[in-house]
Amino acid sequence: VILKHVAGLKFNVKLGEERKIELDSAKEMGHAFSPMELFLIALAGCTAMDVQWIMDRQRQKVDRLEISALGTRRDEDPAYYKIVELEYTLAGPNIRMGAVERAIRLSKDKYCSVIAMLKGDVKIDIKYRILDGAGAGQFHTLAKA
Amino acid sequence: VILKHVAGLKFNVKLGEERKIELDSAKEMGHAFSPMELFLIALAGCTAMDVQWIMDRQRQKVDRLEISALGTRRDEDPAYYKIVELEYTLAGPNIRMGAVERAIRLSKDKYCSVIAMLKGDVKIDIKYRILDGAGAGQFHTLAKA
Repeated sequence: VILKHVAGLKFNVKLGEERKIELDSAKEMGHAFSPMELFLIALAGCTAMDVQWIMDRQRQKVDRLEISALGTRRDEDPAYYKIVELEYTLAGPNIRMGAVERAIRLSKDKYCSVIAMLKGDVKIDIKYRILDGAGAGQFHTLAKA
Repeated sequence: VILKHVAGLKFNVKLGEERKIELDSAKEMGHAFSPMELFLIALAGCTAMDVQWIMDRQRQKVDRLEISALGTRRDEDPAYYKIVELEYTLAGPNIRMGAVERAIRLSKDKYCSVIAMLKGDVKIDIKYRILDGAGAGQFHTLAKA
């Protein structure tokens, strides 16, 4: 990827003709994202694709998958995320809790390239819930391996 | 951030009304980015903003700043970047090499939150060049601290 400076702390990335992202570090972001927002999106995206794929391989029909990612930064520089809270919401008629735990754990421990690059003091806190049409499911904490 | 599944391995992120990113893992990406592309963009973006800001504080006028980021993935799972090559290109009438080295090093070692989250076996390889209007400058490898 090639990042080009626009003005102030605003940068653009273009990949090919169709793909563009604006980056900025400002109060008024317009269409832009901050680098740390993009990092969270990358992390949520990689585990989302893993979980979608593994659930499929486990023949679990997932009608809806959402992942919420919240990062809490350190107070001092470098102000990286000391904790990232991931909340997975899966909806489908017949989703097994064990299959969800397995999919999330395989992503976290084996497949997710973004998570695999993080050092130990970036804590990943994982919760998930299963909605089966019978109303809001409760969040469960991912059990220890 | 909240990531929502669209179809296949395609996901959407919306932040507010104006900010949207599509993620996918496909041969035909359309407007979408892969998680690992977004990670590289996040990394390049964070160090770009640091360098821009530090050069400004050093009263070095930078007319143009570009960063190229190339990641090489491992062959096995998790297929994270074993090496990220960053190439900084700075153009301006009177840019000092020492000021550039200092800005890049401060970003890498002190300010860049994305780099600070990476574990040791993700190697960051840094080169930079300074263009002063007299033609293409050569790339220099960032000197050891």
